[in-house]
Amino acid sequence: MAASAAAPTPVRKRVVIIGGGFAGINAAMGLAKLPVDITLVDRRNHHTFQPLLYQVALAVLSPADIAQPIRGILRDHSNIEVLMDEVVGFDVPNQRVNLQTGAQIEYDYLIVASGSTHSYFGRDDWAPLAPGLKFIEDATEIRRRVLLVFELAERQMQEAGAHPPLNFVIIGGGPTGVELAGAISDIARLYMARDFRHIDPASANVMILEGSPYILGAYPADLQRKAIEQLAKLGVSVRTNSRVTDVQPGYVMIGNERLDSAVTLWAAGVQASPLGKLLGFPTDHRGCVFVDEFLNPPHHPEIFVCGDLAHVEENGRQIPGVAQPAMQMGTYAAKRISRLIARDFHSDGTGLNEPFHYFDKGDMATIGRKAAVANIKWPFKGRWSGFPAWAVWLLVHIFFLIGFRNRLAVFRQWAWTYLTFQDGARLITGSQDLPGWNTNYATQHDPAAADPVDMALPRA
Amino acid sequence: MAASAAAPTPVRKRVVIIGGGFAGINAAMGLAKLPVDITLVDRRNHHTFQPLLYQVALAVLSPADIAQPIRGILRDHSNIEVLMDEVVGFDVPNQRVNLQTGAQIEYDYLIVASGSTHSYFGRDDWAPLAPGLKFIEDATEIRRRVLLVFELAERQMQEAGAHPPLNFVIIGGGPTGVELAGAISDIARLYMARDFRHIDPASANVMILEGSPYILGAYPADLQRKAIEQLAKLGVSVRTNSRVTDVQPGYVMIGNERLDSAVTLWAAGVQASPLGKLLGFPTDHRGCVFVDEFLNPPHHPEIFVCGDLAHVEENGRQIPGVAQPAMQMGTYAAKRISRLIARDFHSDGTGLNEPFHYFDKGDMATIGRKAAVANIKWPFKGRWSGFPAWAVWLLVHIFFLIGFRNRLAVFRQWAWTYLTFQDGARLITGSQDLPGWNTNYATQHDPAAADPVDMALPRA
Repeated sequence: MAASAAAPTPVRKRVVIIGGGFAGINAAMGLAKLPVDITLVDRRNHHTFQPLLYQVALAVLSPADIAQPIRGILRDHSNIEVLMDEVVGFDVPNQRVNLQTGAQIEYDYLIVASGSTHSYFGRDDWAPLAPGLKFIEDATEIRRRVLLVFELAERQMQEAGAHPPLNFVIIGGGPTGVELAGAISDIARLYMARDFRHIDPASANVMILEGSPYILGAYPADLQRKAIEQLAKLGVSVRTNSRVTDVQPGYVMIGNERLDSAVTLWAAGVQASPLGKLLGFPTDHRGCVFVDEFLNPPHHPEIFVCGDLAHVEENGRQIPGVAQPAMQMGTYAAKRISRLIARDFHSDGTGLNEPFHYFDKGDMATIGRKAAVANIKWPFKGRWSGFPAWAVWLLVHIFFLIGFRNRLAVFRQWAWTYLTFQDGARLITGSQDLPGWNTNYATQHDPAAADPVDMALPRA
Repeated sequence: MAASAAAPTPVRKRVVIIGGGFAGINAAMGLAKLPVDITLVDRRNHHTFQPLLYQVALAVLSPADIAQPIRGILRDHSNIEVLMDEVVGFDVPNQRVNLQTGAQIEYDYLIVASGSTHSYFGRDDWAPLAPGLKFIEDATEIRRRVLLVFELAERQMQEAGAHPPLNFVIIGGGPTGVELAGAISDIARLYMARDFRHIDPASANVMILEGSPYILGAYPADLQRKAIEQLAKLGVSVRTNSRVTDVQPGYVMIGNERLDSAVTLWAAGVQASPLGKLLGFPTDHRGCVFVDEFLNPPHHPEIFVCGDLAHVEENGRQIPGVAQPAMQMGTYAAKRISRLIARDFHSDGTGLNEPFHYFDKGDMATIGRKAAVANIKWPFKGRWSGFPAWAVWLLVHIFFLIGFRNRLAVFRQWAWTYLTFQDGARLITGSQDLPGWNTNYATQHDPAAADPVDMALPRA
């Protein structure tokens, strides 16, 4: 071996990443080959592929198809450790993160990517009545409620001869609301068709209530129209300019109008994780931290805020809180940290002026099992709808699923479901209560069936 | 068309089946082609393939891999309806079943196959501290606890430099206890090996505590010895003659001896579903209904008790409460009902004297991923252990999984897991509390680490 002039061994920098979502995982991957020690902190043990969470909620996929242990994803990188703990605050001057256990972690660089949660616009009492879709637990709870409605209706038909209407009310007409509505329509019209003897699952009424004049607000007007047409074909009704003023067990209010609802889902508002405010820098009205073109809050080049938690503007428009920009921000933060570290050693400023740029490949939302809208910007430009858009959606989502195992499993399950009309995970677990379900419906509607206690089931 | 002498249209008999386990599903299948109307009642919407539940508990399989909606299994039989409801009693003289909703169902023939549940020998306060394994919810709860222990230990090592011992105590040395122990050892030694930086998952101590002198009491003595040897190879220790006298958060007591336990699991006692007693016929000490050679309680040829709920003796020995006899009893009850109905029409007594006979093909229990004990009685006789027994176990279980979809999914997942050493569903969902986990362990064991609040994580 040739002798070389021994350079002083540099002190290894310590990077702390908060959040194992798209931004956090991509940041960790980007830093994995560098001479740094990385700690990724998350409250949960798994990364969730959120764009497919609605398919878990509607019983097509299993939780493990779209969620993977963070340790498993990062296991081959010996400079990364994963800490399952909850961050409760920051000591920015001393470069430390405070954990709920009372311990602290030191950092040289900090990447905060703790994402967002539902906003009920100050009405947190609505949360148990209208669950939103953010975590695996949300998905299994929505699955429980949706499946339970059909079971309870069948039971009531068998035992009392009538059931309340199968109304599914989705509050919010963004991509999540549209995807949930299409998937509920699928399950009711297609996958359950032959399973019930007394009710007609296809009689389900799926409604989207949107406060603004438009659904899919981020899409061009022609795709918004096409989405409404395709939803109509699935029997999903869309009401725009309809702001929900109250959510109660069994119904919602739009002003003075009461809409019966067997299951109400929340796809309306999003707010940043509370860690944004706890950092102590200015935030917008949703709690997102204002960051500069390097994703840093003011005067703190060692802190990066990425993903949904960051308020980043480009050409005067805020970058949306979806998967693509989160991934890109995570990757950018890792790259910039590598450049900062390189300058430490080499006093060389190359590349450090390169700002973050969101490379927008477009947006897609599925509408049931054969339709979608896609506003594609890369690798070609085009506005697609219907089956071609859905096919593109399918390919892109299989491709981007983290982990080869899950990709195979999801592909197999989709092929099975789309060919055989059998969904994959129609399990009701946990409680069998459904708030607001009207068990007196038969009595109200048929006085002859007044005393269910004394009533034997009629012969089929 | 040729004219035929018109026989009087028989009144269709009504069969009610309670329970969608092995006995109930097999009874329904057996009756599906007969001119009867069948109602299958279950509290849950899914049939569970219980012999593989422990693989869900230990994160190899997903719930949907081993559970299927009962409606889906029976959807092609138009004379079967499924009712998701809970039975609360019987009106035997009037041939009616009482439901918790207040409704009743009439029957001409009744098959009660509501199975069994855990028995804590009068100490129901132990149940939340030592969950047993009967339903999907039990499996995900055990999965949560087992996985959480490793996460909490890793966190405590990172933050405080020490952690309590990774002790897993399994109470009960029957097949379930042995399979759980082997599977925990697998996950600790194999699947988690590369995932942690601070703890050694393989340092887990897995213990089986058995009150009697023998584990696997139903097996021949040589296979019991081989099981203990194979468990020892996996690092599982077995203590026989060790009756647990108390279960507390974080430990169990055997008389005056205290054993620390991070996760305690219950595989000791089983009692019959309460419906056995509610039928009003004599039961044994576990609540199983004494039935005759036709599976009828005394003087009620229209009532069949099947599966775990039945106390059936053959050659002076009670038939065990496992899957094979349950399936056979369900099939037998269906066959006998068809003969009873046929006699109604034809005044012919053929076959009605044929009693139930348990066709015992043998027993098998796995011990981790490459070993098992098998006491095979059909199609050949043999006592196998080690890898050959495990291979047979694998084939048999894939073959008997209800439903083609699940069979494929399970096979794919097993192939993946056994080849790559990666389990399939390592998700922690729900609460992150673990009763009795000692967060002061470091302080007790290392006075220098006395003030965790002021302690930053050490550099790796």
